[in-house]
Amino acid sequence: MEEEIGTGRLEAFSDGVFAIAITLLIIEVHVPHGEDLGRDLLRLWPSYLGYLTSFLTVGVMWINHHQLFSLIDRADRTFLLLHTFLLMLIAFVPFPTAVLAQYIRTDDAMPAAVLYGATLTLTAVLFNAVWRYAAGDRRLLTPAAPQSEVDDITRAYSFGPFIYGGSAALAFLSPKASAAAYLTIAVFFALPLAHWRMAVRRT
Amino acid sequence: MEEEIGTGRLEAFSDGVFAIAITLLIIEVHVPHGEDLGRDLLRLWPSYLGYLTSFLTVGVMWINHHQLFSLIDRADRTFLLLHTFLLMLIAFVPFPTAVLAQYIRTDDAMPAAVLYGATLTLTAVLFNAVWRYAAGDRRLLTPAAPQSEVDDITRAYSFGPFIYGGSAALAFLSPKASAAAYLTIAVFFALPLAHWRMAVRRT
Amino acid sequence: MEEEIGTGRLEAFSDGVFAIAITLLIIEVHVPHGEDLGRDLLRLWPSYLGYLTSFLTVGVMWINHHQLFSLIDRADRTFLLLHTFLLMLIAFVPFPTAVLAQYIRTDDAMPAAVLYGATLTLTAVLFNAVWRYAAGDRRLLTPAAPQSEVDDITRAYSFGPFIYGGSAALAFLSPKASAAAYLTIAVFFALPLAHWRMAVRRT
Amino acid sequence: MEEEIGTGRLEAFSDGVFAIAITLLIIEVHVPHGEDLGRDLLRLWPSYLGYLTSFLTVGVMWINHHQLFSLIDRADRTFLLLHTFLLMLIAFVPFPTAVLAQYIRTDDAMPAAVLYGATLTLTAVLFNAVWRYAAGDRRLLTPAAPQSEVDDITRAYSFGPFIYGGSAALAFLSPKASAAAYLTIAVFFALPLAHWRMAVRRT
Repeated sequence: MEEEIGTGRLEAFSDGVFAIAITLLIIEVHVPHGEDLGRDLLRLWPSYLGYLTSFLTVGVMWINHHQLFSLIDRADRTFLLLHTFLLMLIAFVPFPTAVLAQYIRTDDAMPAAVLYGATLTLTAVLFNAVWRYAAGDRRLLTPAAPQSEVDDITRAYSFGPFIYGGSAALAFLSPKASAAAYLTIAVFFALPLAHWRMAVRRT
Repeated sequence: MEEEIGTGRLEAFSDGVFAIAITLLIIEVHVPHGEDLGRDLLRLWPSYLGYLTSFLTVGVMWINHHQLFSLIDRADRTFLLLHTFLLMLIAFVPFPTAVLAQYIRTDDAMPAAVLYGATLTLTAVLFNAVWRYAAGDRRLLTPAAPQSEVDDITRAYSFGPFIYGGSAALAFLSPKASAAAYLTIAVFFALPLAHWRMAVRRT
Repeated sequence: MEEEIGTGRLEAFSDGVFAIAITLLIIEVHVPHGEDLGRDLLRLWPSYLGYLTSFLTVGVMWINHHQLFSLIDRADRTFLLLHTFLLMLIAFVPFPTAVLAQYIRTDDAMPAAVLYGATLTLTAVLFNAVWRYAAGDRRLLTPAAPQSEVDDITRAYSFGPFIYGGSAALAFLSPKASAAAYLTIAVFFALPLAHWRMAVRRT
Repeated sequence: MEEEIGTGRLEAFSDGVFAIAITLLIIEVHVPHGEDLGRDLLRLWPSYLGYLTSFLTVGVMWINHHQLFSLIDRADRTFLLLHTFLLMLIAFVPFPTAVLAQYIRTDDAMPAAVLYGATLTLTAVLFNAVWRYAAGDRRLLTPAAPQSEVDDITRAYSFGPFIYGGSAALAFLSPKASAAAYLTIAVFFALPLAHWRMAVRRT
């Protein structure tokens, strides 16, 4: 009864959402209006670090998204629903980024760091849901997708929620350690590690 | 005298407008500046629900738009005009979303809920106009479009304005019930119901 | 010495700028914070009309841009420079739109209407410059472009600066008449008039 | 162990980031709220010049990016990381543009001009890094890329960091001269100079 569709326009639409979410991050870095611009610009370092962390994080998510869609070649309605929730979370990232940047040096750093980590944890959960739905029984995979690679991705993704969830939990002990963890994770995932394998095909 | 054109670049342009409108929704969720960040973040729940509702709503509209353009394969000037009005309404959605989120807990919730519903009602009307113009006498349809599917869409779309219009009217009795209806409709349309059929082809 | 390039990625980039400029218009419609939301929302009518006018205007410019690039099939550096200035003006439109909407009911309506008209006049001048550079000696045209159509466009475009310039000049007499003229022009250009001919090919 | 990927979707994603960064520039030009709109609009000239400078600068960067990807036809993880940093800097440009426009006429013009120049210098450094990584040993180049053109680009790009760095250093002597230099550089790079050669192929 339910038909499946191709993913061409879905990828284009997703690229748009990723590109806009990542570029909107700069809107949350506000021009300072204090007495001493030089000092004020330096004191904006949490905004710069937040920009760096979220840009890297969303950038790596884009690369992962790109990779998944090299293996997925059709979509059904359940997939579209899960995928819409995934995009919803990615487009949400500028908000917790701004909250964390503005509150990290205050007594209210804890809820800000929790919000940021909760958003990334939920995003990682959705990445797992989207992938597992598509890859389960090879439901929406291209026949050319090697099963070993599919299994590798499933295994690798399963750590994401725990890594981000752990960093969010760390915020209850030390919000600054939690924020440092988010940046560390982003850099780590972005690094061209030797064991990294990208299965995205020529497009 | 009047020539018809293809829809390739029109779809790309529309994807851009949809992606931006849906991503701009987060701009209207403002960083709180109160005494207690944790409590303030929780009290932002109307903004989160508004974000969820509008993201789902516009996301489903994108899916529908995608579906229509799998059946429509050319455009003329009248179609372009109607389609421009449709995009105009979709790009408008962030404004009533922000108004509703900010006023739903106040004595002014009623006009906010009416504005939100009126926007979606008008959007549904324009979806009908765009589709009926293209599908009437199969004016702009691809020869491959099965007439039964065309008729299914025409029938399904005809309910849209009444569903949204009814929810908007509900705002005069209870703005909160009206807002709940918008969310319910969005979730309902997004659900992968058994009878749902997507006619979008591989792209 | 100077090589020519294709226009595929240039069109994609332009689509992005058009889509974002047109969608950013809604950012300038601000949530009211007065005593009576219903009345305040109604009193925002200049913002709604500004949104309508600029959305239609930029939408029609996108259609025209689309049409030109069905006839232009390569670019050189001079063309890219002129085209960048054209995009710069189109991306500028949200600013005069916001100024006009906020000042049309005040004593300062005149400079606001002049700014809006000057922006559109300059945009029309750039459209002429881009087109005339590409079409002169058929410098960048596809061989398939019929000369009669090329001449039709050259003639039609030559009126643009005068129509917008005249409306801008009208602002010195009556800013409201000037604003009404901008809306009228936008609607007129958007209407599917019988003599309208679109030469854009299937894409 | 490490696989290489094509650049199709990477270019599309980059186009999105460029288009959004360039269009967001207008958000930083704020509607004035003074006594005399006409005078206030004229006094916004630093914002207009900043818009012009950054739009031209990012526009030329887009052209250069386009040119590079006509020679680069695959990507590996290191390249993606460098490229993400490049996009991060381009998406950052609206912030220093706004800072410079708001402070150029104040006593705090110096740090504003330094920030602007530092951003462009770092962007030029990243352009070099991205290119040199791809072109070194022709690591990611298309076989069709003529080595003479590759060498020309390497040579031309190597000046960028010094030109921007020098303009940034000039800010310590005269912030206004520094700002004028940024505009001059943007215009100079945008001009269709006789020796300019664009290697971008038909796309």
